[in-house]
Amino acid sequence: MNIVLLESEDVQSDTWSIHSKRQLQHLREHLEITVGQNLKVGIRNGARYITEIVSMNEHEVRIRPIREELLPAKLPVHLIVALPRPKVLRRLIMDSVTLGVEKISLIHSYRVDKSYWQTPFLQQIDNYATLGLEQAGDTIVPEIQLYKRFKPFVEDVLPSLITQETPAYVAHPYAEQRMPINISHACSVVVGPEGGFIPYEVDLLIKNGCQAMSLGNRILRTETSISYILGRLFS
Amino acid sequence: MNIVLLESEDVQSDTWSIHSKRQLQHLREHLEITVGQNLKVGIRNGARYITEIVSMNEHEVRIRPIREELLPAKLPVHLIVALPRPKVLRRLIMDSVTLGVEKISLIHSYRVDKSYWQTPFLQQIDNYATLGLEQAGDTIVPEIQLYKRFKPFVEDVLPSLITQETPAYVAHPYAEQRMPINISHACSVVVGPEGGFIPYEVDLLIKNGCQAMSLGNRILRTETSISYILGRLFS
Repeated sequence: MNIVLLESEDVQSDTWSIHSKRQLQHLREHLEITVGQNLKVGIRNGARYITEIVSMNEHEVRIRPIREELLPAKLPVHLIVALPRPKVLRRLIMDSVTLGVEKISLIHSYRVDKSYWQTPFLQQIDNYATLGLEQAGDTIVPEIQLYKRFKPFVEDVLPSLITQETPAYVAHPYAEQRMPINISHACSVVVGPEGGFIPYEVDLLIKNGCQAMSLGNRILRTETSISYILGRLFS
Repeated sequence: MNIVLLESEDVQSDTWSIHSKRQLQHLREHLEITVGQNLKVGIRNGARYITEIVSMNEHEVRIRPIREELLPAKLPVHLIVALPRPKVLRRLIMDSVTLGVEKISLIHSYRVDKSYWQTPFLQQIDNYATLGLEQAGDTIVPEIQLYKRFKPFVEDVLPSLITQETPAYVAHPYAEQRMPINISHACSVVVGPEGGFIPYEVDLLIKNGCQAMSLGNRILRTETSISYILGRLFS
């Protein structure tokens, strides 16, 4: 947690209130906070501030904004990724948000177990995004959308995202070209499930405008491949 | 698991034996294998083969090598990373091995809890490396070393790793220069613990030849930063 993310209702008076159990516990255990100390705080979808702790008790830490800070820039990337198994979902959303993708679409794919769409973890996505923002020091929640059917997404939604200036790259182990490095334009990045897209899916993605790009001859886990790709796209 | 990694004692006759419970379970549950089917198999620190399944029962799958395959190349990187908390260690080793680093050094740092050096998970490092190799389709186990004291490592070991041709980059949020992208030489990469190196440690690393490099103005988790860095270093 590199900033504490507050809701707009928490910042309505001259001093602001941190009262979530999770945040208070983190502040106590990892930062050993004291009155007078500075604290980095953001307002969800708002600005980011250096604040000063003015009081604290068991249930609340009250802070006073001192000055506004710059927000970190987002990466101009729309990440389209096959819904991972529930255990991986938290880290995948958190890391993608931390890395700064502008938009996330979770899609179905043949190798996505249908039960994954019923997991209660899907209700937690906003919380996972919050963790990612607090890690990154960001406040702007990316748009996250779910597409439970592969073909309608690829045929009806994906083409509208692709232009000559904003290509879509699908990570594919058997592609001839390597995933681009050090580009200077926006793009969409499509990442399959563990086990990969099936050939029919890769074909349909390519037919609808995606460019298949290899990550080398090592096969990466989904979550690893996302930070690997985002690390190389932009200098 | 993109190859099944066998020990040299398993490949002493014309047909070879897969008999580890973990591997058999994976083959049954995820690959639904049948006799006559091909299977990718590697020998630890040896070659990699396409094989054919010749028989199978509850306790063993027997295979016959058909032809040798090329091994994926390693990345010319020595990864030096602060020992993570036990829960993260498995993924960190697994992913670093999957990504292909040649050598891993786990080091102490002020923000590494001393109890981490006592965790039984440290005895499992070879198993985590195996998982990474099986994910990558690789067979060559990287050298993994532990350094329980920071200063002796930085002052006595690190300088011997650094030359003009093989620099060492320490990931540091407040460095002015960005982590290099698309390089064509070997290097060492130094990654701190959650919470980062303390200023004394960064200073000592720099004094001993490291170059501090930023990953941008978003603060990444240790594991995320490793795949982010390895993704950008080489095209």
